[in-house]
Amino acid sequence: MFDKLEEECGVFGIYGHPEAANMTYLGLYSLQHRGQESCGIVASDGHSLRAHRKSGLVADVFRDPVLFERLPGQSAIGHVRYSTAGGNDEKNCQPIMVDYVRGSIAVAHNGNLINAQELRNELEQLGSIFSTVADTEVIIHLLARTQSDSLSERIADALRRVRGAYSLLFLTETRMVAVRDPNGFRPLILGKLDGAYVVASETCALDLIEAEFIREIEPGEMIIIDKKGLHSLFPLEVAQPSPCIFEYIYFARPDSTIFGREVYGVRKEYGRQLAREFPVEADVVVPIPDSGVPAAIGYAEQSGIPFELGLIRNHYVGRTFIEPQQSIRHFGVKIKLNPVREVIEGKRVVVIDDSIVRGTTARKIIKMIRHAGAKEVHVRISSPPTSYPCYYGIDTPTRTELISSSHSIEEINRYITSDTLGYLSIEGLLKATCGSENLEQCHFCTACFCGRYPLKFPRLKDDRQLGLF
Amino acid sequence: MFDKLEEECGVFGIYGHPEAANMTYLGLYSLQHRGQESCGIVASDGHSLRAHRKSGLVADVFRDPVLFERLPGQSAIGHVRYSTAGGNDEKNCQPIMVDYVRGSIAVAHNGNLINAQELRNELEQLGSIFSTVADTEVIIHLLARTQSDSLSERIADALRRVRGAYSLLFLTETRMVAVRDPNGFRPLILGKLDGAYVVASETCALDLIEAEFIREIEPGEMIIIDKKGLHSLFPLEVAQPSPCIFEYIYFARPDSTIFGREVYGVRKEYGRQLAREFPVEADVVVPIPDSGVPAAIGYAEQSGIPFELGLIRNHYVGRTFIEPQQSIRHFGVKIKLNPVREVIEGKRVVVIDDSIVRGTTARKIIKMIRHAGAKEVHVRISSPPTSYPCYYGIDTPTRTELISSSHSIEEINRYITSDTLGYLSIEGLLKATCGSENLEQCHFCTACFCGRYPLKFPRLKDDRQLGLF
Amino acid sequence: MFDKLEEECGVFGIYGHPEAANMTYLGLYSLQHRGQESCGIVASDGHSLRAHRKSGLVADVFRDPVLFERLPGQSAIGHVRYSTAGGNDEKNCQPIMVDYVRGSIAVAHNGNLINAQELRNELEQLGSIFSTVADTEVIIHLLARTQSDSLSERIADALRRVRGAYSLLFLTETRMVAVRDPNGFRPLILGKLDGAYVVASETCALDLIEAEFIREIEPGEMIIIDKKGLHSLFPLEVAQPSPCIFEYIYFARPDSTIFGREVYGVRKEYGRQLAREFPVEADVVVPIPDSGVPAAIGYAEQSGIPFELGLIRNHYVGRTFIEPQQSIRHFGVKIKLNPVREVIEGKRVVVIDDSIVRGTTARKIIKMIRHAGAKEVHVRISSPPTSYPCYYGIDTPTRTELISSSHSIEEINRYITSDTLGYLSIEGLLKATCGSENLEQCHFCTACFCGRYPLKFPRLKDDRQLGLF
Amino acid sequence: MFDKLEEECGVFGIYGHPEAANMTYLGLYSLQHRGQESCGIVASDGHSLRAHRKSGLVADVFRDPVLFERLPGQSAIGHVRYSTAGGNDEKNCQPIMVDYVRGSIAVAHNGNLINAQELRNELEQLGSIFSTVADTEVIIHLLARTQSDSLSERIADALRRVRGAYSLLFLTETRMVAVRDPNGFRPLILGKLDGAYVVASETCALDLIEAEFIREIEPGEMIIIDKKGLHSLFPLEVAQPSPCIFEYIYFARPDSTIFGREVYGVRKEYGRQLAREFPVEADVVVPIPDSGVPAAIGYAEQSGIPFELGLIRNHYVGRTFIEPQQSIRHFGVKIKLNPVREVIEGKRVVVIDDSIVRGTTARKIIKMIRHAGAKEVHVRISSPPTSYPCYYGIDTPTRTELISSSHSIEEINRYITSDTLGYLSIEGLLKATCGSENLEQCHFCTACFCGRYPLKFPRLKDDRQLGLF
Repeated sequence: MFDKLEEECGVFGIYGHPEAANMTYLGLYSLQHRGQESCGIVASDGHSLRAHRKSGLVADVFRDPVLFERLPGQSAIGHVRYSTAGGNDEKNCQPIMVDYVRGSIAVAHNGNLINAQELRNELEQLGSIFSTVADTEVIIHLLARTQSDSLSERIADALRRVRGAYSLLFLTETRMVAVRDPNGFRPLILGKLDGAYVVASETCALDLIEAEFIREIEPGEMIIIDKKGLHSLFPLEVAQPSPCIFEYIYFARPDSTIFGREVYGVRKEYGRQLAREFPVEADVVVPIPDSGVPAAIGYAEQSGIPFELGLIRNHYVGRTFIEPQQSIRHFGVKIKLNPVREVIEGKRVVVIDDSIVRGTTARKIIKMIRHAGAKEVHVRISSPPTSYPCYYGIDTPTRTELISSSHSIEEINRYITSDTLGYLSIEGLLKATCGSENLEQCHFCTACFCGRYPLKFPRLKDDRQLGLF
Repeated sequence: MFDKLEEECGVFGIYGHPEAANMTYLGLYSLQHRGQESCGIVASDGHSLRAHRKSGLVADVFRDPVLFERLPGQSAIGHVRYSTAGGNDEKNCQPIMVDYVRGSIAVAHNGNLINAQELRNELEQLGSIFSTVADTEVIIHLLARTQSDSLSERIADALRRVRGAYSLLFLTETRMVAVRDPNGFRPLILGKLDGAYVVASETCALDLIEAEFIREIEPGEMIIIDKKGLHSLFPLEVAQPSPCIFEYIYFARPDSTIFGREVYGVRKEYGRQLAREFPVEADVVVPIPDSGVPAAIGYAEQSGIPFELGLIRNHYVGRTFIEPQQSIRHFGVKIKLNPVREVIEGKRVVVIDDSIVRGTTARKIIKMIRHAGAKEVHVRISSPPTSYPCYYGIDTPTRTELISSSHSIEEINRYITSDTLGYLSIEGLLKATCGSENLEQCHFCTACFCGRYPLKFPRLKDDRQLGLF
Repeated sequence: MFDKLEEECGVFGIYGHPEAANMTYLGLYSLQHRGQESCGIVASDGHSLRAHRKSGLVADVFRDPVLFERLPGQSAIGHVRYSTAGGNDEKNCQPIMVDYVRGSIAVAHNGNLINAQELRNELEQLGSIFSTVADTEVIIHLLARTQSDSLSERIADALRRVRGAYSLLFLTETRMVAVRDPNGFRPLILGKLDGAYVVASETCALDLIEAEFIREIEPGEMIIIDKKGLHSLFPLEVAQPSPCIFEYIYFARPDSTIFGREVYGVRKEYGRQLAREFPVEADVVVPIPDSGVPAAIGYAEQSGIPFELGLIRNHYVGRTFIEPQQSIRHFGVKIKLNPVREVIEGKRVVVIDDSIVRGTTARKIIKMIRHAGAKEVHVRISSPPTSYPCYYGIDTPTRTELISSSHSIEEINRYITSDTLGYLSIEGLLKATCGSENLEQCHFCTACFCGRYPLKFPRLKDDRQLGLF
Repeated sequence: MFDKLEEECGVFGIYGHPEAANMTYLGLYSLQHRGQESCGIVASDGHSLRAHRKSGLVADVFRDPVLFERLPGQSAIGHVRYSTAGGNDEKNCQPIMVDYVRGSIAVAHNGNLINAQELRNELEQLGSIFSTVADTEVIIHLLARTQSDSLSERIADALRRVRGAYSLLFLTETRMVAVRDPNGFRPLILGKLDGAYVVASETCALDLIEAEFIREIEPGEMIIIDKKGLHSLFPLEVAQPSPCIFEYIYFARPDSTIFGREVYGVRKEYGRQLAREFPVEADVVVPIPDSGVPAAIGYAEQSGIPFELGLIRNHYVGRTFIEPQQSIRHFGVKIKLNPVREVIEGKRVVVIDDSIVRGTTARKIIKMIRHAGAKEVHVRISSPPTSYPCYYGIDTPTRTELISSSHSIEEINRYITSDTLGYLSIEGLLKATCGSENLEQCHFCTACFCGRYPLKFPRLKDDRQLGLF
């Protein structure tokens, strides 16, 4: 992606495995692309919950093998997090774990609630004290106040109050519960490993631990797993599902299968469709690595123009690279990417990526490609212009930062200094996702492209709050 | 690469730049692939040298911007290191820096000396005390004992005693000196940034800081840079140059130009030649990312079989991944790579990589590909079988660990369970590197493939020492 | 003290000083003897509260001067803690700070509540979620649920529900509130530094920052300090004050003045009284440093036997000394103390300390003194036998660990191998504390000696809980 | 001591004990007062040496029990260090350990060489490269260059070249060697623990590990300990012994026996002598804790004035206390000491300490005592004015910083604002140390008081170097 569009979160849980925390560690490892800010695991040994949560990458936070001895038990849930709502403090790391009158409970949340502030105000008026700024804590407080007898009812009571996107995993001393919101914005997958049940944001987490894929958890479904087995309920109000199409475009790993299709193939199809919508005479198709690779292969195949890895990515650049001094700040893009001169010199280059956010990175990369001797630079983006913010768990910049919310494609083309610029159309996107023949039934959320939000958020009186989104 | 063939080192130096240490940091950053064990920078402000050296990646070791304030001055040299000779202790980090009777001197070394132990014994007999186990310290002690007047003569005196591979950078209070051994085993590049001279292992380091490429430093050449400018000398015995062909196959970054050619193009040509030598009927060409990508693109182009990124690499796996527990050790390969089922299922797959070391990783990957549904798996390696150890700076496993030193290709094929296995021939390798028409003049070191060492190492009486190699 | 009797906590607050956090740091520094487990400071700049809390000593936790920039403002409260109730987790560090419906509030607590578990159960039933295991959090939750308008009323509402020992400091954005429980178990001192008000557990904290001592805060008194000045209220039920006599015996620093007298003098008087009650023919009076020094000086003066520092304390032993290996564990006492042979050899030695807890340390020290050549060893303890646990904030061992709760003085004498053993009588203790003439009005809490608890604790049904005390 | 007069070093070694490194750790622990800057242990398992050395206190540097597994073997030497010569870098930590032509050798040094720079220049001219700035490295280089056959001869060859103060411990794979310089400036003690030999700077290290004291190692003596037992040699030029009297005054621990007497008793005698030389009518004798305590007890006994601990030391102040901000820098003394008002108010106070260095601390303490209500303050110092720097291992301030090198006693009295000030006379000091009757044979080094140096240092041409001393 030409600019950093920040990610959301990933969840993983396992019930009934002798090395539950270990497996969760591996699952989080494979979901690391969904959140690099912090991570955590809560494990249950049947009697009590134990947690380890910290800022940092999974491999760093769980570097010490001793940690796993401190997380004994046969069930565990984990979370990788990019701060959507909730600041960077360690106390905001998930899974959140609390003791309440019924015992202990932990929760890991992927998504974003749109009435969290409202509910929080209401709960604080009643004397609740919040210890984090995370949306997710609202769910816990609602749970603590409901008088229903069964865990599933208490969770359902709480979730009937909240609105928004949520793929949730709960863990108590003896149960694991997975819930996906009625719109099914975020993916949630069910698998099995020997006798143990596994729940994860993406199938790549199942692959790593060699678990078998069973099915996706349905929008509005609650799955309760305990000693007696697995129970499925649909306790929430029914809605028209609207899974997030950005999972296909950018978030999910290409080797994952979500919402019924493997991501790599969908992305390649976006590239093919892009070649159909915006053909160009050129000598070489070059992806922005690694986000643009599948679409570039698709574009190259459809157009017949050779595919080349014309930009080399420095593997040792983490997303957390801290540039040491003001004076070298402009090395930002070069530190990540360097052109292969031989591939580019004297050529007409088609550059493929999945999105443009602010446009500044695209502009720098194009300058770099021209500096390496390109004759022409044609940019092709395998998604429509991102013009609207997301309220369902993706931490997009505000509208003022989104170049496509305030500039026409022609203006963006001029700004980033490409010869031509083409964005995949919304119709093309849906066609490539669902197939031309299924367009009618293609109910993905495309709010960030078209502004039609499947779930309305409440009016807030406080203007400052709007700025948060 | 199917197995980890460990890397060597990288050097970077700059003379006459107001932010010399900063620039060196960036240069090392782009040379990180040449050594991840430790790194260091020594800077001179014209009066004294200051050092910061530590185990770890460049971005970690130099995380704190304050460090650069402690490394003031207009000249600096740096080093990234994988331990060839010299253990893992921090005191073995380079650049080595000492005070001796003439002042201070620092040295950064890429390569390996073959008579270091001999010289060390001799110097210790005379009362020298070594404070590291690095070969490089021998050079410093020779330098300290020579009586020549000028720095260049003292360095030449010392280097006339040593045999082996070395691309060296020296820094004193007022001078920077670069030397490449007469065989020119390792690359060394000269560039310019505004008025400052830059020396680096590869051109990718020039690209990052936007320095201009001037030329390669020649085998046997010494370049002295001081206030008066740049002087070139050839003070060492002349030899037939024999640059290391493994730099093209694996070590150098694909976007670098070394030994006269850009690496990406050479690798693609290896893929094409491989397709000519070992064609196969198949449905898809899949590289081991990222090492096999250029050769796979070449193979695909030559053979007409579609290229696909059928194995996805987990970006958050460092080479330093520490597996937490014995019980999950077998996740080794899966934690790095996961197949794209859609690309592989039901297909005849050509898998491309640059080398096989022990064969264990290849075996696991092939199993994984078959598990994803491949009908056939054909392995193509873009280099000849690596049968002999390297004494010139590459930390290859010992002969007993190199599968190709003790097994026929057919045996390897059986072991890794591929349907067919093809290695690029030595002739094909040289042809692809130099062009068919220049084969006579193609004097690369191919000792690791054919056992013909361009520089003989001394007989050691102590058997234990042989074990070291 | 012959054995470790664990300490309680210390609090410090300042209102209206330009370097409030700095002053609090110094205040905590001088109160470090009251708690070495963790410490913390919360500061207010008039608009919001900021905290830094961590496990460790004050000098370590606040080592980085930058921390004070992150704690701006003219008011601050701080806490040093030994874990009475509440485990060792960092989240249990005080001051506790929360956001609730009325804004932010922080609280630092010295003491122990005896109905905390009861109240916690009740609050959890109502849906409150606790984020620590500290008693103190109960007060915060009670506060959050009360509907009273003013801060002082809300605090009073909350405190009317709790029973136990508390010297509390609250900080909001604009106010500091200090409260001492109606029994006045723990000390709490009011001082002034230029225009700023200071509240602290002991006067030694005033001395360090050169603040002027004003008066002690009275049992049951609440003091509210804000921009308008200082207000004193008595909103709680009145009780017969019963300050903790152990503050004089061991806890408070000898240079502090609490409960109306300077501690050093009281301790010396205990030594004099001990000499009256248990005279002995001997050659030298030797204190266990440093706890036994004032009483030893008193004993020496009263008896006319010379005082000598016959046991030398190793200054570099923190209370946190970690013995490295099982095999050297028995060095425990020797690592802290070593006898001066010249003082002890051939002598009849009176050894003075303030208490004996388990007896094991006393036994080792006496062995050490005999090994250095003592002819006789007479042990004199400047307090009565500690036979009963404390529920008011002192973390004494359980009854089974207290040697004096299950053994007669004669049995203890045999166990520790002293020639004679004398404990100060309860009557002698009170006489020495208040003067013979004031014995009637001498209402100190001596529950740990006599078992008469001034404040009854509620019956708990859960036996496990009793074990906690 | 009224001001910080910085300390020297301590050494410890053990040969033939199954837990040699553990024992050395404990020995260093008890010698911590001789150096708090850094420490280290080198252990031998009979085949090779292993080291752990670091900046910090013993308890911190060796906090991790795993370290002892990495220091196996039956012999070990250790060192605690305050930087006399040699900066603060970790590489300057001792014991120094090197590999040279004869194997490995480690050395721990207490003392200071006066011709180290001369020898270093000479060795560098011959091509030696120094890796530390420590004097001690000179000895190692001399050793490496000597051609003598036996270890004892090589050490003797090297030591015949050096001049100065040294109590040295050497460790090779199979031997431990202890040497004390011909003047015997620094103490060195021989002991035995079961079958193992122990060497230490002071007897307090023997006491801790319950080793038996055998005798002091003699000035000029070399002791070699190996499998065959202990051998004593006197290979160095004979000199008039001149042990450092400051060991008695301040450096050694009061519970140690060195130079034939226990330190506590000597210090008490200084106090008695001081009372004889400078009697005063007063109400109370108060020591500066803890350095002034023994002399104060002696003064009180001799004068009949009651001894009181009128200044309380904050135990949690390490010597490494870092004051957080400029604005609170003046809390320096108060953070360490606080007066007991009851003891001081309205009294005529005799304050006792062992020395005054710069006078600033004394001035602050006296101000503090007067502020607590003292009617008169009489200062008595249990040593003569320190007017000359030490070249034999004590890091005294330069002459310009020593208040007594440039001011008369009357001027100092005015500066520190005492009513009267008395320093022990040199004659009184010697009388109290050796007994009046032995004054003729009392050959202690008193150079820092009288300027008569028992060992002349070489003239250096470089003035800057003089400043170093």
